[in-house]
Amino acid sequence: MITAGIVGASGYTGGEVLRILLRHPDVQVLQATSESNAGHFVHAVHPNLRKQCQLKFSTIGDLKPCDVLFLCLPHGSAMRRIAGLEGLAKTIIDLSADFRLRNPDDYPAWYGHPHEAPQYLDRFVYGIPELHRKAISGARFITGAGCLATASILGLLPLFKHDVLARREVFIEAKVGSSAAGDTPHLSTHHPERSGAVRSFEPTGHRHTAEIVQELGFGQPLAVHFSATAIEAVRGVLATCHVFVKDGVEEKDLWKVYRGEYGDEPFLRIVKERQGIYRYPEMKLLAGTNFCDVGFEKDPRGARVVVMAALDNLVKGAAGNGVQAMNLACGLPETAGLEFPGLHPV
Amino acid sequence: MITAGIVGASGYTGGEVLRILLRHPDVQVLQATSESNAGHFVHAVHPNLRKQCQLKFSTIGDLKPCDVLFLCLPHGSAMRRIAGLEGLAKTIIDLSADFRLRNPDDYPAWYGHPHEAPQYLDRFVYGIPELHRKAISGARFITGAGCLATASILGLLPLFKHDVLARREVFIEAKVGSSAAGDTPHLSTHHPERSGAVRSFEPTGHRHTAEIVQELGFGQPLAVHFSATAIEAVRGVLATCHVFVKDGVEEKDLWKVYRGEYGDEPFLRIVKERQGIYRYPEMKLLAGTNFCDVGFEKDPRGARVVVMAALDNLVKGAAGNGVQAMNLACGLPETAGLEFPGLHPV
Amino acid sequence: MITAGIVGASGYTGGEVLRILLRHPDVQVLQATSESNAGHFVHAVHPNLRKQCQLKFSTIGDLKPCDVLFLCLPHGSAMRRIAGLEGLAKTIIDLSADFRLRNPDDYPAWYGHPHEAPQYLDRFVYGIPELHRKAISGARFITGAGCLATASILGLLPLFKHDVLARREVFIEAKVGSSAAGDTPHLSTHHPERSGAVRSFEPTGHRHTAEIVQELGFGQPLAVHFSATAIEAVRGVLATCHVFVKDGVEEKDLWKVYRGEYGDEPFLRIVKERQGIYRYPEMKLLAGTNFCDVGFEKDPRGARVVVMAALDNLVKGAAGNGVQAMNLACGLPETAGLEFPGLHPV
Amino acid sequence: MITAGIVGASGYTGGEVLRILLRHPDVQVLQATSESNAGHFVHAVHPNLRKQCQLKFSTIGDLKPCDVLFLCLPHGSAMRRIAGLEGLAKTIIDLSADFRLRNPDDYPAWYGHPHEAPQYLDRFVYGIPELHRKAISGARFITGAGCLATASILGLLPLFKHDVLARREVFIEAKVGSSAAGDTPHLSTHHPERSGAVRSFEPTGHRHTAEIVQELGFGQPLAVHFSATAIEAVRGVLATCHVFVKDGVEEKDLWKVYRGEYGDEPFLRIVKERQGIYRYPEMKLLAGTNFCDVGFEKDPRGARVVVMAALDNLVKGAAGNGVQAMNLACGLPETAGLEFPGLHPV
Repeated sequence: MITAGIVGASGYTGGEVLRILLRHPDVQVLQATSESNAGHFVHAVHPNLRKQCQLKFSTIGDLKPCDVLFLCLPHGSAMRRIAGLEGLAKTIIDLSADFRLRNPDDYPAWYGHPHEAPQYLDRFVYGIPELHRKAISGARFITGAGCLATASILGLLPLFKHDVLARREVFIEAKVGSSAAGDTPHLSTHHPERSGAVRSFEPTGHRHTAEIVQELGFGQPLAVHFSATAIEAVRGVLATCHVFVKDGVEEKDLWKVYRGEYGDEPFLRIVKERQGIYRYPEMKLLAGTNFCDVGFEKDPRGARVVVMAALDNLVKGAAGNGVQAMNLACGLPETAGLEFPGLHPV
Repeated sequence: MITAGIVGASGYTGGEVLRILLRHPDVQVLQATSESNAGHFVHAVHPNLRKQCQLKFSTIGDLKPCDVLFLCLPHGSAMRRIAGLEGLAKTIIDLSADFRLRNPDDYPAWYGHPHEAPQYLDRFVYGIPELHRKAISGARFITGAGCLATASILGLLPLFKHDVLARREVFIEAKVGSSAAGDTPHLSTHHPERSGAVRSFEPTGHRHTAEIVQELGFGQPLAVHFSATAIEAVRGVLATCHVFVKDGVEEKDLWKVYRGEYGDEPFLRIVKERQGIYRYPEMKLLAGTNFCDVGFEKDPRGARVVVMAALDNLVKGAAGNGVQAMNLACGLPETAGLEFPGLHPV
Repeated sequence: MITAGIVGASGYTGGEVLRILLRHPDVQVLQATSESNAGHFVHAVHPNLRKQCQLKFSTIGDLKPCDVLFLCLPHGSAMRRIAGLEGLAKTIIDLSADFRLRNPDDYPAWYGHPHEAPQYLDRFVYGIPELHRKAISGARFITGAGCLATASILGLLPLFKHDVLARREVFIEAKVGSSAAGDTPHLSTHHPERSGAVRSFEPTGHRHTAEIVQELGFGQPLAVHFSATAIEAVRGVLATCHVFVKDGVEEKDLWKVYRGEYGDEPFLRIVKERQGIYRYPEMKLLAGTNFCDVGFEKDPRGARVVVMAALDNLVKGAAGNGVQAMNLACGLPETAGLEFPGLHPV
Repeated sequence: MITAGIVGASGYTGGEVLRILLRHPDVQVLQATSESNAGHFVHAVHPNLRKQCQLKFSTIGDLKPCDVLFLCLPHGSAMRRIAGLEGLAKTIIDLSADFRLRNPDDYPAWYGHPHEAPQYLDRFVYGIPELHRKAISGARFITGAGCLATASILGLLPLFKHDVLARREVFIEAKVGSSAAGDTPHLSTHHPERSGAVRSFEPTGHRHTAEIVQELGFGQPLAVHFSATAIEAVRGVLATCHVFVKDGVEEKDLWKVYRGEYGDEPFLRIVKERQGIYRYPEMKLLAGTNFCDVGFEKDPRGARVVVMAALDNLVKGAAGNGVQAMNLACGLPETAGLEFPGLHPV
């Protein structure tokens, strides 16, 4: 039995880590911190956990050593606390943006401030198992990935690995639900304003762009033309990506590329049907699951391929992916605790 | 041309008064106040008014005399300001709860604090034209009504006026959209929490109960068993009401009662169809309109009659009803400015 | 390992039985029938089951003996097929309405046609474990319950069992999502018409009334004043119930009554908080779970108690409750396969 | 007073033409046809028109001469009926796709069948007033435009007219609500399946592509990389478009270009704010209005410009745009009947 702690467990990502670990067959949750809710039952904040456990929030100061520590703090906090926390657990999984980018210069460029603990950047593995399974196995420091970046990267990765693209340029229109904005109320998330909205919140300049360039560029320049739109949903991401393939690359070649990469992946599904109403990835079916569904279609009038990738931003885009990485890091079965298949209809 | 001012025009009710009056053929909007937005264009807060007008918010201190003043302040403010404002216009229409109840004792009982200007209570007319059209015509002080109260009262009024009820007891389950909670963000209205919610927010003790007793009781005791549930919607109220009719009262009698009361009312529609999918009042069809749709059904197994009444909480439940009252008070055509028929589908 | 078959597995209820049983630790799904989809993978209809199993739909004619047979046929079909199916399994669980009512006369009265196999009515147990756990344990024939009836009954049962009510009369306003109407498209469920609707579809005369009278009446007359409203949601039921308690019954007495009945129930939770935004049962939190959450509030101005009960119509209101009953009937742990805690936010 | 008829008035587009014309100050609706609803009140199908008029549906065979005839038939019908209908009115406005493309070869290429009345193609004006105002004034035959095409074209037109683009290539991701699929129920629009969906329904090959090429290409080749995604909404389109500008073109130049084109347009608004929550076009604010809101942002890291254009698919994307064209064709004020400003919040 592995012991785990969750730092910053009152937020949405922390709550999902809690939900998953409480049912994980090989993990015992020792502690869950929240400075503002310390002393209260975790189900006071996460009502889905009623009658699931009697755990109460503690503070960061109360933390005891454990096997795995999940950091679910706001962006900017983990880099300031990492030195104080790293001694508490042999595996640290940070789900903020603080250690995702390897190049320290990317932080001022994309986040507007220098990194405060750049010496750690090299020590963290970018924790998407489908990209870095070997490095994650046994890793000491693992960083989660951005939810929009995860969908984009997993959607496009096979095309980049197999060198079928004609241009080093991708266009990505990412649609995302409201939970990605976190649990703090603002006017922008006030229900009468946010309900039914189709809000272009980062037409250009979205920070996840940097992760996509880093992971798909393989050291070469890559133009990632990204835009992000908030839509009516609580959970979910759909990244719609446009790329151009080399002459002669047909759909059957793409099938081979995707099947080769993802056929054996437990959480990646190729969704591309000739008929029915769910012919392509549909994010609502993935709520609560750790799946990333990927589909594609070649434009019969040209060289463009549209790739669609869907996931639950709080699970495969955050907490679930983190637990999958933990399973690898700790030598547990990769899918343990992550078996929920999703609902239909929903 | 009548001149109007709106005090507290940055909120949802004030914004709707603005929207309606800007297109009203007989009204000129002179001023719209917002202490926190003074100096900004009204369309900075109400984006639907872009390219509609160049009006800027002013402050209460800037108010100039005009014919009609709409007060759209938070509950509790109008009673403190009324003495200072009443000299500015010959017609005052308050859309808060401050002057709805005639009995000063009802304020501590239902609102938890004594009334601060009880001498005004007698001077205000409860401004639902279908109840008090004569008193509203030419009135100096008019109060709006609660949105849930308006639906409940308009749904049930004909039954009370025509003495067909067997019990002095009604059960009302009122469903309401999120805009009724106002424009201030809270955790309870944060989109990830509020979206899809079916939230029992006042199972008992809702303040609008007092208005219903006042207006339907006709001076006699009346038991109003009210509960309120917030549902997934921005605008709209549906009140589902249960009453019991006297022996021998059949559906055809009820038709006669409702047709007699509402057949000539411009904003009341009896909705009761044998077929189709809109057999009873449907609040979503009323978004933006001043209609209150009323339907009913007698239980074939007993004396119970279920009455359903729907409206847009911001229009017939607030701003539109206020403009209708203004039209009457000022001798304008009752429907002026209120002709929008609503959308389908929507 | 118990073997199971699902008859009528392409509908929403059948799909949920499949989803749950595929992950049930003690059950092997042998067969799933659908006359119109025979030969196709189950995930062609239930896309959440992609990469979960390679089962294909078979026909009723293909059915082989197994331990448990779930009947998920349209209302009216099971009564015609029961004689032919009963020999195939030692436990039959029917999730249609065909065997819910013990009195054959109730079928013409509420369903408009005589029962075609009345000799079976006595043999079926009304399968809500919280009501009939002993009778279900080892039962051969089990019927599911109506989703609105289940919420209403579970909400009110403790009050009836403990004789705290002053009137034999209840008012129930049940709100329900669109999946309760089944998987066949109609104009009434066409998205542009159904989206955002608050549709009074059975203000009186809802068939589930008969089940509530049967289960809560305990052989005595009971007036159940029921109305049903379809709201914007796919899954979920919230029943808002009004009853009147005897003089002297206070909230603390109600707490005792509910705790006594439900304190040890694995799927019943009393939800009644002084603060926070989830003070009462909230159906959206229950999507995919087998919980029924129950809350209550006594009107401080009188003897009325408002009881709120929420569940997922396809799980505790159908498939999950059926699996819970199966667990009891087959001597398995009652909660096996039903551990999903639900999501937050959602 | 102009007289009008609506052929195919029971669909969503026909219903919107009806709604608008019934309140149009200069138009009298003589007739509204529906073969399947002939003899029934129009409000039996369009419940928003209750108490608005006593018009009943007639058949095409009953049509009498009038000034303007709106054709709101399914795609493919108008081309078969045009010869029989053209004598009935001096202005014909077809809102189907049948006469949108000037080149007859485009029909087999994009619609899969040859055009059945190609001799009419030259006679129709592509009826977006912002593009072809002069040709529409006094025109005899006017065709509406596709809703997704309208948003895309209006969003991008100023950039093409002013020759600021570096590439003849655009990427468009169009998001659209469910009403665009029409009023016929399918499994794909069944509420439990369609609700909350983010469905890639035409990642490539969408027919509106042909209109965009025709109207923006100005006779030169133009690569339009289009994809369409159905989202949770009943009404509304948001087209997110990516283009590349020439070296040296900055945001201030784009402002000049857009202001020059749209500053005086009554139904085009440039939405681009530095702060607030509605910084870019938001389709939900446009429900029921004839506005097309356009915004843009230049990527500070490159030459890409993202253009966003929003409208109501049934109004500016169909019926409202048709009425605007009718106003021009008949010499009426261009905005007559189209003044509804839209709601906030909504």
